[in-house]
Amino acid sequence: MQSGVDEELDKNQINLSKLSEIQENNGELRIAKRMLSGLTPVEIANLINSSPPKNRRYLWEIIDQESHADILRELPEEVAAQFVETMDSRQVAELTEELDVDDAADILQHLPDQVMQQALAVMSAQNRARLETVLSYEEDTAGGLMDTDVITVRPRFTLDVVLRYLRRHEEIPPSTDQLVVVNSDNVYLGMLSMSKLLTSDPNMSVREIMRTDVEAIPVDMDDAKVAQLFEQNNWILAPVVNAQGQVVGRITIDDVVDVIIENAEHSLMGLSGDEDTFAPTMKTTPRRAIWLGVNLLTAILASSVINIFQDTIEKVVALAVLMPIVASMGGVAGSQTLTVVVRGMALGKIGSSNRKWLLFREISSGLMNGVLWAVTLGVLTAWWFDDIKIALIIGIAIIINLLVAAIGGTLLPSLLKRMGIDPALAGGVALTTITDVVGFMSFLGLATLFYR
Amino acid sequence: MQSGVDEELDKNQINLSKLSEIQENNGELRIAKRMLSGLTPVEIANLINSSPPKNRRYLWEIIDQESHADILRELPEEVAAQFVETMDSRQVAELTEELDVDDAADILQHLPDQVMQQALAVMSAQNRARLETVLSYEEDTAGGLMDTDVITVRPRFTLDVVLRYLRRHEEIPPSTDQLVVVNSDNVYLGMLSMSKLLTSDPNMSVREIMRTDVEAIPVDMDDAKVAQLFEQNNWILAPVVNAQGQVVGRITIDDVVDVIIENAEHSLMGLSGDEDTFAPTMKTTPRRAIWLGVNLLTAILASSVINIFQDTIEKVVALAVLMPIVASMGGVAGSQTLTVVVRGMALGKIGSSNRKWLLFREISSGLMNGVLWAVTLGVLTAWWFDDIKIALIIGIAIIINLLVAAIGGTLLPSLLKRMGIDPALAGGVALTTITDVVGFMSFLGLATLFYR
Repeated sequence: MQSGVDEELDKNQINLSKLSEIQENNGELRIAKRMLSGLTPVEIANLINSSPPKNRRYLWEIIDQESHADILRELPEEVAAQFVETMDSRQVAELTEELDVDDAADILQHLPDQVMQQALAVMSAQNRARLETVLSYEEDTAGGLMDTDVITVRPRFTLDVVLRYLRRHEEIPPSTDQLVVVNSDNVYLGMLSMSKLLTSDPNMSVREIMRTDVEAIPVDMDDAKVAQLFEQNNWILAPVVNAQGQVVGRITIDDVVDVIIENAEHSLMGLSGDEDTFAPTMKTTPRRAIWLGVNLLTAILASSVINIFQDTIEKVVALAVLMPIVASMGGVAGSQTLTVVVRGMALGKIGSSNRKWLLFREISSGLMNGVLWAVTLGVLTAWWFDDIKIALIIGIAIIINLLVAAIGGTLLPSLLKRMGIDPALAGGVALTTITDVVGFMSFLGLATLFYR
Repeated sequence: MQSGVDEELDKNQINLSKLSEIQENNGELRIAKRMLSGLTPVEIANLINSSPPKNRRYLWEIIDQESHADILRELPEEVAAQFVETMDSRQVAELTEELDVDDAADILQHLPDQVMQQALAVMSAQNRARLETVLSYEEDTAGGLMDTDVITVRPRFTLDVVLRYLRRHEEIPPSTDQLVVVNSDNVYLGMLSMSKLLTSDPNMSVREIMRTDVEAIPVDMDDAKVAQLFEQNNWILAPVVNAQGQVVGRITIDDVVDVIIENAEHSLMGLSGDEDTFAPTMKTTPRRAIWLGVNLLTAILASSVINIFQDTIEKVVALAVLMPIVASMGGVAGSQTLTVVVRGMALGKIGSSNRKWLLFREISSGLMNGVLWAVTLGVLTAWWFDDIKIALIIGIAIIINLLVAAIGGTLLPSLLKRMGIDPALAGGVALTTITDVVGFMSFLGLATLFYR
């Protein structure tokens, strides 16, 4: 069985090699088309997603136009948008009619503003109206995450009526483990689990078995908070409501996974959570350049600290050899603390009542590791440079920097948050800047005192 | 509504402050107990999870013994094990009877070996047998992730029979959006979606509407691969089979989310994916010490490169001031490439057929960013140190290091993987070591040539 699934995964690579070959030899279009016709839309989407830009365009062109919508639905938005960009406004407008409104909105959001406006202009009034509603939500809110195809039922229905109602539905959207219960004004009342629905007496009413302890998600809630609620409650599906409490959509766990990944990554360094692996150079380069620029500024700041101590370094060159070690140990220790604290904050576990304990734990841990590595490095340095003084200096500097890393890693995230800056995004750079500056400052400063 | 959910999240913090107060004043036990009695097991578990060790023990002691099992089920395994450790073997044995076998196994796995063996020894033979089966799977495989409570049905059943069978079941496990279809030997045949079951004609047979295109997960599959399959296919639930193809369990998306987080984190630096925020100092310190030790080794390696160039630095101290910038820019650029490549590999998108394209993209992107920042930094340096030579040197070194970062970031992960090392875990350190060494080597080496 193991090999069965391995084969499944490798099929992609085999298909890719075959296609590249066909394309390079500029022919056998029939073979390529026959190959594709044996694949499902999900498989074709995976194939496109694993291909460099040129092969993607080739694949796209040889696919039957009729299956375009089915494949776009399965592609990451950014990749889908690349194909839609090449269509004319009328084609885009037609396509959006075939897609679910949330998929269509996601793709439109990735198009250049002008292209999107043109497509909206040629749409039917009805299609435009439903799209504009979804487009009006910010991308990083519950509204930006949600799907709009919710199945709602009324509390007074009997389960038998619900079951017959579902049977009339052509298809229940995937990941539907709960139905949403609303009143006649579409205001959210509670949740009805499919399991309960199946296992209860069909003559009971929805009201009798629905859960009312699950709160709905406000449409303007931050997506990080949505992820937090999903993680804490192990939800598969949650309803989304507007300011009037009316149900406007649903969020499912697969929508949330990307957000969870983005929060888990310590700092994305100019990459987005669902980064397209095969984005063209001109797309990836500017994004990364910004982050490199930020890093340059912080590196220059650290360098200007070293600059102060030029005279001392000139006297004792060994300092230049050893100083990166002090900075780097502080950087790693700081990241360790920061990771735990940012993650704990994202899960809502850290507040004023336990931050003091956490700070104490981090300081003790930092002190213990500080002493351990100060002694280790001190002995090594004494042996390497045959100089007790420099061994003593580096030991003290390590302890200072690991303590600063512990304190900074614990307190910086809430400080950043209060300043309206996302600690998951900026915490890493900010803290490394601190540990670099403190590392160089303490090590070179102490040396200046000792080697006067 | 927004404030409603905010309150929900803050309730934890309010409860925590109240409890700490009660505990510190050493009394009003009644008030604390009454407070807890108003909370659900999930809420109490969240409260415990957000508390430092001392408060956790206090909470645990004042909770009704009867609800212990319900609360343990909701706690992270590591935290649950802390409480179970304080029980005697007989209590542990009794507790495992109340828990689901997978929850019980997870907790047992976190106990000291001796405690676990003693508990197994006093269990009923039946309980011990079912636990030992689950304990025999490695923790980082499908077997270690799975639950064992699978609902299976036979292909010849009519849907009506299935519905009646479900109704007899007391409770369907959460996240069940699919039933597993097996033959009389319990061998996996296909999946029956709950939605299909609800919306199809009850007189049809399971065979007619089941899906047979979903492959089951082998019990020994690596958990990272399991996560990859869930992400690619947007699964909620997947069946797990043994070597004979028999269904032995099921994995649900909430089990997989932790694995996804672990894969997304670039390097955990001595932290586990579901790290307990409030683990005591003696638990966190050794784990982190190991990673700090690894970092020390790589930092010393970089320092020994600087050591070669002591004479040059003595002549031109500005080199010591500027050299961290070259290393740090390479480190960030390398991490950017590494993140994209490791993530792409985890999703099975990168193989021999497209690695060449990816390498080309990364080199072009590295070159463009290299030239951009070489010029910027060159101009800055020329102005800062009033020295064209050093500006030229740093520019060339930046370009070299960014190219090495691009090549290393693209090729290192598959190299590590072929050596049996997890690139998500070790890639970061390995690459930073390379960019540090190359950064110092190129910058100081060029300087030695230029300033001879």
